[in-house]
Amino acid sequence: MTSATDSHYSLRPIAIARTPFKEKFAIPRQPRLADAVHSQLQLLPPYDDARALAGLEQVSHLWLSFIFHQTLTQHQQPHLQVRPPRLGGNKKIGVFASRATHRPNNLGMSLVKLLAIEPGQMVVAGADLLDGTPIVDIRPYVPYADQATDAHNHIAPAPPEPIEVEFTPQALQQAHQHGQRLSQPVQLVIQQCLAQDPKPAYQQPAPTREYGVQLWDINVVWHYPAADHIRVLRLELVQQ
Amino acid sequence: MTSATDSHYSLRPIAIARTPFKEKFAIPRQPRLADAVHSQLQLLPPYDDARALAGLEQVSHLWLSFIFHQTLTQHQQPHLQVRPPRLGGNKKIGVFASRATHRPNNLGMSLVKLLAIEPGQMVVAGADLLDGTPIVDIRPYVPYADQATDAHNHIAPAPPEPIEVEFTPQALQQAHQHGQRLSQPVQLVIQQCLAQDPKPAYQQPAPTREYGVQLWDINVVWHYPAADHIRVLRLELVQQ
Repeated sequence: MTSATDSHYSLRPIAIARTPFKEKFAIPRQPRLADAVHSQLQLLPPYDDARALAGLEQVSHLWLSFIFHQTLTQHQQPHLQVRPPRLGGNKKIGVFASRATHRPNNLGMSLVKLLAIEPGQMVVAGADLLDGTPIVDIRPYVPYADQATDAHNHIAPAPPEPIEVEFTPQALQQAHQHGQRLSQPVQLVIQQCLAQDPKPAYQQPAPTREYGVQLWDINVVWHYPAADHIRVLRLELVQQ
Repeated sequence: MTSATDSHYSLRPIAIARTPFKEKFAIPRQPRLADAVHSQLQLLPPYDDARALAGLEQVSHLWLSFIFHQTLTQHQQPHLQVRPPRLGGNKKIGVFASRATHRPNNLGMSLVKLLAIEPGQMVVAGADLLDGTPIVDIRPYVPYADQATDAHNHIAPAPPEPIEVEFTPQALQQAHQHGQRLSQPVQLVIQQCLAQDPKPAYQQPAPTREYGVQLWDINVVWHYPAADHIRVLRLELVQQ
């Protein structure tokens, strides 16, 4: 046995992600499925220094290593198996065959597009991270090394099929107003996130059942007039 | 400020990598450049359980998250900048623009090919890991999510050009003998690893200068009869 067996390693955040996602529900299940989502990676000392970012202007995409910090507090027992949402939520597979959030060391990785380098922060598109997520490493994407063109994954062979998302006239107007207030493409972000159909695959909700999720300081409310069809009903400002 | 700023997170190894690489010198600088290198990922309890691997037979490639454990003991000060070998070893760039081993949290990630699932371990090809490396997570590669076909990286646009590697008749015979003893493609592994030219780019060694590196229990000795040309001189069994 090696001594590494008994070791543990300590990680400190190097940045904090600021994203629209205030809860896990409705976060796309892979990064880059919702590229209208712009997030800030706020660098922490001593990495909030332009020298640490020198050269990044030559790179289009980044790998983020992060901690599933909300999952962290919810379980202490190791999970050997998980129920991935795309298998309907009731079929188990090994934790190492999945990217589920319940992982041995609560480590996540996400591929995002680098939009801007600003003093003390980076702006990225497509992050699938909760607001406040601790980032523990940032690395450049290297296309020749990271594109395994001979790879296959028969569990997740293709992106989930997006479902239809429509807005009531009221919701559309509210999205426009909140978009102006927040300087964010609110309607497009809602559209892209809900097109992934956040509800568990096994649920068959009646049209009278309302769902809600918080994006920024907005509670977005929708229902399913039919299976695979979402109608956004209204947007409500969350009382802080 | 969020509380995450002051947090730290503890990681425990879930597996230990068994590889031919006994020292950092001559490890390819990206994974999969030397696919003749086969490594074992020996799972640690409680993850040495077939249930944790269920479904992996549907997956061709894996992402490994690991700790640069040898780098860990060598520095305590944060590095804001690094000198990547492919820039000649004397030009600095930001640590977040590079995948250099001196990283804020000593976290590495490698893409490898899954060859076999065996009781308590996986066999993978192309790992660029030191023997004994602690693995802290294993995830399936998801081609549609991980192949950013619109990505560019002008710092590392293409794999390094391999250089010519030849063997003396003596070295060739020794590689054959060690290959039979270890049941490993010793000659091919040496060829693939040395074709990456392990020496620092700024060195211009005289033909009389010998280099050596340990692979498995073999010290491989070579020289440069000309620039960009390696001749393997002999293989010596390392005294354990």
